[in-house]
Amino acid sequence: MRIKVVIPIVQPLNPEFSPEANLKELVQFKAPDTEIDVVFLPNGPTSIECYYDEVLAAANLLDLVVHAEKSGYDGVYIDCFGDPGVRAARELVEIPVVGAFQPSAMVASLLASRWSIVTILGNVVPMIHDLARLYRVEPNIISVRHINTPVLSFNHADMKMLLLEQIEKAVDEEGAEAIVLGCTGMMGLSQYLVSEMINKGKPVPIVNPSGAAIGYLELLIRNQLSQSPLAYAQAIRTNR
Amino acid sequence: MRIKVVIPIVQPLNPEFSPEANLKELVQFKAPDTEIDVVFLPNGPTSIECYYDEVLAAANLLDLVVHAEKSGYDGVYIDCFGDPGVRAARELVEIPVVGAFQPSAMVASLLASRWSIVTILGNVVPMIHDLARLYRVEPNIISVRHINTPVLSFNHADMKMLLLEQIEKAVDEEGAEAIVLGCTGMMGLSQYLVSEMINKGKPVPIVNPSGAAIGYLELLIRNQLSQSPLAYAQAIRTNR
Amino acid sequence: MRIKVVIPIVQPLNPEFSPEANLKELVQFKAPDTEIDVVFLPNGPTSIECYYDEVLAAANLLDLVVHAEKSGYDGVYIDCFGDPGVRAARELVEIPVVGAFQPSAMVASLLASRWSIVTILGNVVPMIHDLARLYRVEPNIISVRHINTPVLSFNHADMKMLLLEQIEKAVDEEGAEAIVLGCTGMMGLSQYLVSEMINKGKPVPIVNPSGAAIGYLELLIRNQLSQSPLAYAQAIRTNR
Amino acid sequence: MRIKVVIPIVQPLNPEFSPEANLKELVQFKAPDTEIDVVFLPNGPTSIECYYDEVLAAANLLDLVVHAEKSGYDGVYIDCFGDPGVRAARELVEIPVVGAFQPSAMVASLLASRWSIVTILGNVVPMIHDLARLYRVEPNIISVRHINTPVLSFNHADMKMLLLEQIEKAVDEEGAEAIVLGCTGMMGLSQYLVSEMINKGKPVPIVNPSGAAIGYLELLIRNQLSQSPLAYAQAIRTNR
Amino acid sequence: MRIKVVIPIVQPLNPEFSPEANLKELVQFKAPDTEIDVVFLPNGPTSIECYYDEVLAAANLLDLVVHAEKSGYDGVYIDCFGDPGVRAARELVEIPVVGAFQPSAMVASLLASRWSIVTILGNVVPMIHDLARLYRVEPNIISVRHINTPVLSFNHADMKMLLLEQIEKAVDEEGAEAIVLGCTGMMGLSQYLVSEMINKGKPVPIVNPSGAAIGYLELLIRNQLSQSPLAYAQAIRTNR
Amino acid sequence: MRIKVVIPIVQPLNPEFSPEANLKELVQFKAPDTEIDVVFLPNGPTSIECYYDEVLAAANLLDLVVHAEKSGYDGVYIDCFGDPGVRAARELVEIPVVGAFQPSAMVASLLASRWSIVTILGNVVPMIHDLARLYRVEPNIISVRHINTPVLSFNHADMKMLLLEQIEKAVDEEGAEAIVLGCTGMMGLSQYLVSEMINKGKPVPIVNPSGAAIGYLELLIRNQLSQSPLAYAQAIRTNR
Repeated sequence: MRIKVVIPIVQPLNPEFSPEANLKELVQFKAPDTEIDVVFLPNGPTSIECYYDEVLAAANLLDLVVHAEKSGYDGVYIDCFGDPGVRAARELVEIPVVGAFQPSAMVASLLASRWSIVTILGNVVPMIHDLARLYRVEPNIISVRHINTPVLSFNHADMKMLLLEQIEKAVDEEGAEAIVLGCTGMMGLSQYLVSEMINKGKPVPIVNPSGAAIGYLELLIRNQLSQSPLAYAQAIRTNR
Repeated sequence: MRIKVVIPIVQPLNPEFSPEANLKELVQFKAPDTEIDVVFLPNGPTSIECYYDEVLAAANLLDLVVHAEKSGYDGVYIDCFGDPGVRAARELVEIPVVGAFQPSAMVASLLASRWSIVTILGNVVPMIHDLARLYRVEPNIISVRHINTPVLSFNHADMKMLLLEQIEKAVDEEGAEAIVLGCTGMMGLSQYLVSEMINKGKPVPIVNPSGAAIGYLELLIRNQLSQSPLAYAQAIRTNR
Repeated sequence: MRIKVVIPIVQPLNPEFSPEANLKELVQFKAPDTEIDVVFLPNGPTSIECYYDEVLAAANLLDLVVHAEKSGYDGVYIDCFGDPGVRAARELVEIPVVGAFQPSAMVASLLASRWSIVTILGNVVPMIHDLARLYRVEPNIISVRHINTPVLSFNHADMKMLLLEQIEKAVDEEGAEAIVLGCTGMMGLSQYLVSEMINKGKPVPIVNPSGAAIGYLELLIRNQLSQSPLAYAQAIRTNR
Repeated sequence: MRIKVVIPIVQPLNPEFSPEANLKELVQFKAPDTEIDVVFLPNGPTSIECYYDEVLAAANLLDLVVHAEKSGYDGVYIDCFGDPGVRAARELVEIPVVGAFQPSAMVASLLASRWSIVTILGNVVPMIHDLARLYRVEPNIISVRHINTPVLSFNHADMKMLLLEQIEKAVDEEGAEAIVLGCTGMMGLSQYLVSEMINKGKPVPIVNPSGAAIGYLELLIRNQLSQSPLAYAQAIRTNR
Repeated sequence: MRIKVVIPIVQPLNPEFSPEANLKELVQFKAPDTEIDVVFLPNGPTSIECYYDEVLAAANLLDLVVHAEKSGYDGVYIDCFGDPGVRAARELVEIPVVGAFQPSAMVASLLASRWSIVTILGNVVPMIHDLARLYRVEPNIISVRHINTPVLSFNHADMKMLLLEQIEKAVDEEGAEAIVLGCTGMMGLSQYLVSEMINKGKPVPIVNPSGAAIGYLELLIRNQLSQSPLAYAQAIRTNR
Repeated sequence: MRIKVVIPIVQPLNPEFSPEANLKELVQFKAPDTEIDVVFLPNGPTSIECYYDEVLAAANLLDLVVHAEKSGYDGVYIDCFGDPGVRAARELVEIPVVGAFQPSAMVASLLASRWSIVTILGNVVPMIHDLARLYRVEPNIISVRHINTPVLSFNHADMKMLLLEQIEKAVDEEGAEAIVLGCTGMMGLSQYLVSEMINKGKPVPIVNPSGAAIGYLELLIRNQLSQSPLAYAQAIRTNR
């Protein structure tokens, strides 16, 4: 099985992000017979922190999705928690396309009835609520917290502390029974955060959004399932 | 008060659609002190019937919205029932930006508790449900019907018959208490449809989506209101 | 266009309230071709702070609404945030009738996805939640705060401070993206409150309920729309 | 225990309705130690079939409720499926006040997850939906059907046939698991309807709204419970 | 009328619990013509504090329910706030079966629009939310608080203090308009708690779950109503 | 990775069901490194068609789940669409436990916004709605249809025809965009049904509930995720 991962931004200068770094994160979650290839956009936004960024991302990623299908990939993961361009991409190919938000929400909802998202900036909180309504998971989400840090400023040391603080507050103050990391750039941190929360006597599952996405694609592909043509306008695809 | 109307497609060959034709429809609903200017996209989709079209539209309309603000317009109407690019545009300007769906839904919800939408094609029905969830009006909508006709094939004679048929079914079979015309290309028809329904003894309000949009912009402008910077990431606008 | 404003209480002794004072507030929001006339009830409650008051108000305002239609008015605004008698009034006339709550909710929902109401007394908070459910906007409202002050005790100096305090808490503690002033007696304050919130770095739209109502009536009248006879029992009006 | 029943209309000429006839219906459902007294309004509407009627009823019944408390009654049943004036009455007395809709909805929701209402006229269907939202039971109700017959035209022979027809359709076409009779004037019919449905092999519980109301009052009184002063503005009662 | 009360645990050693003690609590709420018999399980869990306990309880209580019907009882109350085995029991008999949660929720929802539950342990909070969704009352419940005390450790002195503390917080911090005691083992406390809250100037109705259940059964029995065979698989009962 | 499949009934006489037959169905969906073992209950119900059956199943399957964990399995699939005992089982082990309903619902909700379930009997339709509310997916489900056939009467020839008929009706009459097979005994049919629907020009994804469950377990195990101890009372497990 071959999965194409489209990271819908241009490659950042921050060395924490590169096809290799992202691939290293992703392969942790895959089955042995799955191959993963990672690509950044040739043009597009430098990060995704508002709706304007998402329009830019969407307009620049669709060709890569179509090309992935033509190149024989079995599924596409648009590697961003905002799911930019996912609905449009699903109209253009027959192979399954997922972003990070929807798979994460579906996984968290199976682990717990009431969970929280910890994301990057206050600016994206309304966008997350919009997605939550779009996918009808708003009642499952009891809080959306953020670490007030743009994605390109991420560094591991700070991130650990900031995320742990918000995760603990979600558990203590809102009663979160599970956590979703609300940015796919939060890499290499899940295991640390899980362990720390166990140490604090608050053992809370933490969903890595990219892990959920890769798992979901494998599930769909092994079940020979893909987005419904009755929901995503397959009939007119050839005209576009 | 000056309102800029951006029709988010390239001008169609079908002579039913032109800046003049669209303006003629829109001026019916405006206050005496309102000036309206209409523009099509220089590049973009030829019509909007799927999510792919909306991505193309959104990517091509944002500059026009920014330019409208710089040119002194007091508000922008993105003249399409799919509200393409509306959320991104709201991040880029301080003047109010509306599409057609949200104002129509807000007006219909004031006239009646349970109403129906009659749109163009089965393909767009799932997109309309997505918007209904995004704006939390899904429970208000008791059916979404369509006339199975692409927008560029519209002609008045057929449209009258096809719309009347679906409107009557919505009233009789679902109990619709009001109707929203689910495409801004359905021009010059509301009064005919209202009269025919009265003649049939089923007096049902019919919301013209462009009329609702113009009215909403006037309301917002006279109240000195615009989309919330706390919902639409105003803080980072200048960096984009 | 002529709009009749029925203030559904007897004229208070407090000089902040009079036909002239209320009219001065209302004309700020109207189009140039709109005429507004304001009337208090000849009999009825002295203020509206519970359901009992609303029954009294409703029983005494219906004749004024019927008379307004007969006198050629194009729409009626029942000037109270509790929307007393609005549903009954809509059955009695063909011209559009609005209260203050529903237009405000429809406007705020367009500006932001999650907003707060700041009202007068704890007693009316359950009544506001009832209206929110009636109009299906409860999920949009993230808090209902109050200033613990009866409407007839209003004075500008206190009001400014008390409202500002609650508005700031709604933004800071609940994440309100917009505010609705939850009493139509809160006059002459919106601009001050907006400015103060901008000065504090929290630029939040503040909906004046009377402004929303006047704008909504103009919108409906220019669109030749009114409450649905299929929702408001038009068929049996003549028998009552 | 003493229960006062206020029928919120003036006594009809139709001999099917009288204090004696209504009392005969009500005593079927009461405990041995319960006394019931029935009163019509001295002034008010002749029937309740629209919101205008409800305003008239509400304005004329409140004194009777206050008087019932002063006369030592332990609870008041406002005998109408539209619950007119119930919320206002609850503010004026400490003894529990119920209408017919809310108790019926609470009983039906315990018997089945999805149930239907069969009422009198199409005109009142939107009013029933309003109450369903007010009490948050709209998702429990899968259809609201009607027999297209004004309450004052009721006669047993026709009613039996018309109700049976709609009840059967609710079971067959919508999958109703229980039925609520949507008018308190539908007296003396529940047992017949239950038997006929059993004979048809469709054993469906049928809630008599007055039976539910009397039972609910007894339940509340024996539990020393009444409407919450925190929800119904007890603090200001004495001033009105 | 004869009601069988099945307490779905084996009789605890704690002397606060015994058939006599429980009966003494229950008879406070009953009508004069109602006889109540109380039985513990011969085998089963010692208390009900997780889903595993509920499976054990359900498997051991069904025979007692069937036997109650055969012995001529008119209704069965499964005396636990988790409603264990209630749905299965309803399939096995024609007489009405209720647990404690659903009647309490239906009573509280009539007294107030927004109410809170105060229960025993954090462990059962997710179970209570599950029931709230099952019965579609989640939006009515504004908080679920607990006293962090296992049911078998109950003693009156501690309970009074702990419950009062949480009830007051529910009123002050969440705005609860009514309270439901979230464990049927909280006996003999309602009146004390009601009085104390009145003394604090916060007069809040407190629903005793067993009182609500007994009242509901009486209501159903006097109305000749029981769970719907269309909802609870009556057709296949005889085969099991 | 090793997955234990517990079929929560005693092995049926119908030769369509056996550990081998069920295993053959399940291995279609698994990754190459996954081992699956299938076991029926030693005691329990012969099929699961009502809540009573589920109590019997739950009481008899928990030991098998605990034993699976002790034997080194990485996850457990309780192979029934009613998810019997799933919540209790999750309290008893640390490895992930899933039934068939919840994974199917999470998969279908990713493929389409509005989907239908086709199940076995009318009796189980209310049970499916109960699960839908429990997992908050009721709004996603636009119909629950059934083939009126008990699971032990299944034979391939009839099943194909009956399922196809209901699937087509769900697509045509309700607008289903995806289908979930609502019984895990519907084996070896998905591909046939998918093909037939494509041939009819109605290409609708059909979710095999066991395929969704196996895929979900693999996803969870590879992500080192399991049900939340904060939702499933881990703290008291050792005492039971």
